Parts: sequence; structure tokens; C-alpha cells
Amino acid sequence: MTVYQATASAPVNIACIKYWGKRDTKLILPTNSSLSVTLDQDHLRSTTTSRADPSFTKDHLWLNGKEDEIKEGGRLATCIREMKRLRKEEVEDKNPNEPKISTYNVHICSHNNFPTAAGLASSASGFAALVSSLAYLYALPVGPSTLSLIARQGSGSACRSLFGGFVAWQMGSDPSGSDSLAVEVAPQSHWPDIHALICVVSDDKKGTSSTSGMQRTVETSLLLQHRIQNVVPQRMKDISKAILEKDFDTFARITMADSNQFHAVALDTEPPIFYMNDVSRAIIAVIVEYNRLSVEAGKGYKAAYTYDAGPNAVIYAPKENVKEIVELIAAYFPQKEGSFKDAFGLLSGGQLVGKFPAGFNENVAKRFEVGAVKNLIHTRVGDGPRKLGDEEALLNAEGLPRNLA
Amino acid sequence: MTVYQATASAPVNIACIKYWGKRDTKLILPTNSSLSVTLDQDHLRSTTTSRADPSFTKDHLWLNGKEDEIKEGGRLATCIREMKRLRKEEVEDKNPNEPKISTYNVHICSHNNFPTAAGLASSASGFAALVSSLAYLYALPVGPSTLSLIARQGSGSACRSLFGGFVAWQMGSDPSGSDSLAVEVAPQSHWPDIHALICVVSDDKKGTSSTSGMQRTVETSLLLQHRIQNVVPQRMKDISKAILEKDFDTFARITMADSNQFHAVALDTEPPIFYMNDVSRAIIAVIVEYNRLSVEAGKGYKAAYTYDAGPNAVIYAPKENVKEIVELIAAYFPQKEGSFKDAFGLLSGGQLVGKFPAGFNENVAKRFEVGAVKNLIHTRVGDGPRKLGDEEALLNAEGLPRNLA
Repeated sequence: MTVYQATASAPVNIACIKYWGKRDTKLILPTNSSLSVTLDQDHLRSTTTSRADPSFTKDHLWLNGKEDEIKEGGRLATCIREMKRLRKEEVEDKNPNEPKISTYNVHICSHNNFPTAAGLASSASGFAALVSSLAYLYALPVGPSTLSLIARQGSGSACRSLFGGFVAWQMGSDPSGSDSLAVEVAPQSHWPDIHALICVVSDDKKGTSSTSGMQRTVETSLLLQHRIQNVVPQRMKDISKAILEKDFDTFARITMADSNQFHAVALDTEPPIFYMNDVSRAIIAVIVEYNRLSVEAGKGYKAAYTYDAGPNAVIYAPKENVKEIVELIAAYFPQKEGSFKDAFGLLSGGQLVGKFPAGFNENVAKRFEVGAVKNLIHTRVGDGPRKLGDEEALLNAEGLPRNLA
Repeated sequence: MTVYQATASAPVNIACIKYWGKRDTKLILPTNSSLSVTLDQDHLRSTTTSRADPSFTKDHLWLNGKEDEIKEGGRLATCIREMKRLRKEEVEDKNPNEPKISTYNVHICSHNNFPTAAGLASSASGFAALVSSLAYLYALPVGPSTLSLIARQGSGSACRSLFGGFVAWQMGSDPSGSDSLAVEVAPQSHWPDIHALICVVSDDKKGTSSTSGMQRTVETSLLLQHRIQNVVPQRMKDISKAILEKDFDTFARITMADSNQFHAVALDTEPPIFYMNDVSRAIIAVIVEYNRLSVEAGKGYKAAYTYDAGPNAVIYAPKENVKEIVELIAAYFPQKEGSFKDAFGLLSGGQLVGKFPAGFNENVAKRFEVGAVKNLIHTRVGDGPRKLGDEEALLNAEGLPRNLA
């Protein structure tokens, strides 16, 4: 008996031009285009195994070892249904010899290699891995942009995780959503020296979910429409050009300005939405001072912060600056000894010791306690979804999760 | 020998529609109109005595017992020069019998009854008191709007402290600034039940000065122009109408939205400007929940927060809600025993004990330590500048500060 099964992994992406607002909440069509950097799956990834079998009585999904309900009409159900439809239309209808596995129920098992407690949104990598594993299972003859149309309906920003490198989500204009998809601006190989330092920030406060928050902004902010119509289109052009020209100074300027503006329209919402806290603000002050030093030396920006719908900072920087940045962050936000995973061998002996660059004005922020920044993750721009071998499958011979722990 | 001397006090004002941005930095002409509530001088005031005497060798000014330099071409010098000019043109030129005291040097002594450490901007009340005392000294036959033209050149928002009650600063359009002045929207007596609770918030961080911050916003924010052209004009009309109709719900909605939007455009600045901190955010969360309860009970908003260029909250509310609000704030931000000055006799025995209204979701913020909110000041809408008697003069018989302590 043939086993129809495939495993894929997919990356996290962090936007430089932020997605905030839907014009269609069901189809997840955004009010503006957005652009992100795909992060390296070697460090952060979702892995998903999908299997189709005539013996399965219904569709099942396990996430991090726990079964998740697939609600009728919900986002998961939509993605699975759309993938089955593609299998039928693109494969089975065109070639009657192909097995009709689109009629089988599926078992899907997914795992994130980073803890939810890390405060990193896993929905983007999760839906991208789900769609990718089903695409391999169904042997679909379609490219990542087509798959991105489906991943988008799971979680908007998931569509950008279908590509590696630098990725634009074009908002499109068709009410059906057929042109609201991800495209590659440049692959990882074009500018592999873009690294990222994720500062996982502790927070007391339960944040507003991005799904409900962004619609409140759409309904109540008087500034959002101006951003959508008059700011984002030019920024999309300018940052794409900066990426193609490997112009980090412009890339950084736009990335920081757009992060600020996203949080500005969140604040202009009724009631206001705050995602950044005092630790986030202090990280901004540190990066602003770090860049000031460099700009005054005629060298342009050396780092760019960006914040999603939470207090964590992601700092993009050319590889050669990361050691200095890690040490600078550690000077304000001391880390538990041995907690920093030195993935790129920056530190001699692996010991992270706080340090200020020459001329740095240390008074731009106070020194925080251990734990204010819980964790520092050093990663870089990465590739798109990967097909994995059966030895990495998350389902056992019976099509059930290998390890429920 | 005649002593030419006058003493005046002037109030603090806190804007509901915020002033942020100058179109002329020398004349202090704003990029948008603004509107404020004048606070009661019984609680917060600047007092100024001015004397003109032929024996004085130059103009002198003492602020809180310390001599301040009157820089040539500076804001203080401009205000003094303009007041002397008005004396000459409106009094001496028109009536040759009037003494030519505009030619004398002046001694000016000013005092704020609130500590600078309270974090309250004293420039508005200070320049309003300065201009008022000189107006009395010079016996000027002009009204508060004319004086506001001069106070404006000392500190923009000072022009609004020339009136009591609810005051608009009309931005005007004349390049000379002749129509950029304050007008009364409604006097204190129209709506005397509007009270204010000032929450003085402790901050680690030295904030950006409003003078430099607002010009950075003018130069770099892509959202500010939209605010100026498309948001503020309507809000000015709507909140004026709400004040005339004593419609607190609308007044509160606009006040909070405009505070949020001012901080949003500050955040949309390069580099971004943050005035609110985690304590400020928590106060917002508490007021949002307090209003939610009331709105769900069909009663509309009961309180409105607003934040100037710093972390302090000012909470406007109808008098009957203030006891509940003070107790609610004290539940999250415990006060040192006996530190709350119960100016309106809200509390039996004067003891402030934290308390939640029925149905209040306590989890909207965490409980902070004593000192996070350093001080609570209960005040209300007040009257405009007052002429004080000689017994309150700050200059002694020789025209020198009575008390240098």
C-alpha cells in the first residue's frame, strides 16, 4: 500500500514594511503591500508532515504535540480545502492516472523549534509549512506565489514565508484576492550578509491580538488611510531598490521609519494600542545612538530596529556589525551567563560581555536587570520552504504524531 | 515718588487638542489650532510682580528666587519689548499726560507655587503671569486676546493661559502672527464641574524638549501634515460644540483621541519621540476599562486622559466621578500615606484607599510600587489671570526679590 506523505519546513519572516489592516477579513486581503526578510530556518522554523489516507475518518491536525480543532469555515479548514482543490484541478483532473488523494482525509502534524514563550509569531512559518507540506504531498505543479495565495488565507503574513530572501506581499486589487500574493524581491544569495538579532523582551501586559487590533485601527484611526495611500507605496519602491542595490543605509532608514509608523497608527486607534514597552523604547534609544555615532563618522546607519505586534525588537544589521551590537545590547540588558547561543562564533570563548563602542553616550538608556531582555537570538536572512526526508517526518507508521510529549 | 508696580497670577492650562509644530519658529506660529482647559489658580499658578523705575540700570528677571538671564533677541526679551511698545503706543502716545514708564527698565520677579519636579510645564503660566503683570503695570487698555499675541511669543501655549475656562488658540494665517491668538470658547462659569486629576509620573529618561521635538516632527513625520490639514480643524469644531453643550462624552472622546494622535505623530518622527512610559500606558488602560464599564451601562464616557510632552497624565472628569477615579488610580498606584491633598474634601477622614468600582476588570494593568505615580493633584477648571494686591508682591521696597530662598 502506498503511503502518501510529505514533510516540509518553513521559515519565520519579519516585516520591514508592516502589514496592518485588512480590506477583506475573510479572504485576508490587506489594506497595503508589505515587505519582509525571511529568517534562516537553521535557527527558527516550523516543520510539518502531512499524510493523506483513505482510512482516515476526518482531517486532523496536531500542533506541538497537541491536537488542534479544525473549525469548519476557519482558517485551517480553508487552507486544507484550497490545497485539496488545487490537487484536484491541477493534477487529478488533468491526468486521470493520478491517484485521487484529494478525496482522502489528511493527518497533519506540525512543530515549531522555538518556544511560544519566545514571543515570536509562529503563524507565518506554521501556515507556510502546512501549505508547503501539502504541496509536496499533492505533487502540485505550482510555484510559491500560487501557494502564497493559500497560505495568506491562513495568516496574512504567512504568504511571505513561501520565499527566502527579501519578499514583497503585493496587496493586489481583485476582490477575489487572486492578485494578493507574495513575490521574491531578491533571493537570500543576493544579500546573504544581512543578519538579525532578535531581542526577546519580557512584558507584564497581555497585548492586543494583531487580528483584532488591526481592524480596530482600520475602523478608528484617522491617520491609517494616509499611511496606506500616501506613504507605503513609495516606501515599497524605495526599499525594494535599496535591497537590489544592497544599500543598507536606505534599507535601515525605511525599516525604522515604517516600524515607527505602524506603532504610531496603533496608538492613533481607539482605544489606543501599545505593543512597545519601556524596554522596547530603551532598545530604540540605544540603536539611535549607535547609528548617530556612525552617521557622524560619515558611515551611514549600521543597524535597523523593527517591532511587530509585541515588545520584541528585531535588529537587522550587516554581518560585520553584529558582534558590536550584541555586546552593546548586553551592556544595557545583561543576559544570564551562558544563555546566548553564539550561532556564528562571534565571541572568543563564547562569553558575552557588555561593551560600549568608543564615543557612545551611555546615558541614552538606563541599565536594566537580568531578564528585561530574556533572550538574544542571532540569525540571518534565509531560504524558503524546504522539502525534508522521511527520516524527519513527524507522523509515525500509523499516521499519528511520533511524539506527543 | 510714585512706585510703578503690579502683581498678577496666571493659571496652567492643559490642552485637549494638542499644539505640536510651528510654521514660524521665531514668531511661534503653530501649524494647527489647539484648545485647552484652564486649571484653577487656587491650586497651580505662577505669580509675577513687575516694577518699572528710572533708577533701574537694566531689565532683570528672577524666577523662583534665582536670577534668569534676559538674552538679547530671546523670548523673554521679546515679550518685555512688546509690552513696552504697547505701553508707548496705546497709552503714552495717545495721552501725553501719562508717565513715560515704557522707557524705564523693569524688575520682574516670578514664582510658581508648584515644584518644577512636579513635571508640569510652567512656561505657560509663567509667561501669562509675566504679560499680565506688565499689562497691569502699564495700565494697558487691551483685552486678553491682544495680550495673548505677546504671551504666545514667550511660549506658544502661554497664550491660552490668558483666559479662564475653555480656550482656543486660533492658528491664524497672517505671516505677521497678528491673528494667531487665544479666544474664549466658554468661561469657567459655563461648565465649572469639569475637574482634573493630575497624575505626576516618575520617569527614568530625560525627555526630548517640546521645542526641538515638535520641529523634528514637522521635518520628518509623514503623518503630521494629514493631522494638521484633515483632522484638527474638524476636532476643533466638534470639541467646541461639545463644550458649549456640556457634552462630556464627546469632549472625552475627542480629548483622548487627540492625545493619542499627538503621541502617534511624535512616534512617527525620526528618530521617534516617546513621552509616555509604562506607567502612562497603564493609566490609559485603567481609564479605558473605567469608561468601558460606563459605556456598557449606557452612560457614556466618565473620564478622559490626556498627556502632554511628558509621562504625566491629566484626567478630566465631571466632579461627581472624581472620588471613584482617585480611588481607582490609588488601587494601581499606591500613594505615600498622607501625601494626597484632598482639596475638595472627597474622602472621609482624608484617607486615600485604593478601590475598584463594581465589575471592573482588575487585570487591565498590574499594581505598581509606591512612587510610580509620585503625586496626585486634584484641581478643576479655573479662571483667567488675576490682579493681586501689593501685599502679595514679590519685590521689596527696593525693587529686589523679597525672598531669595
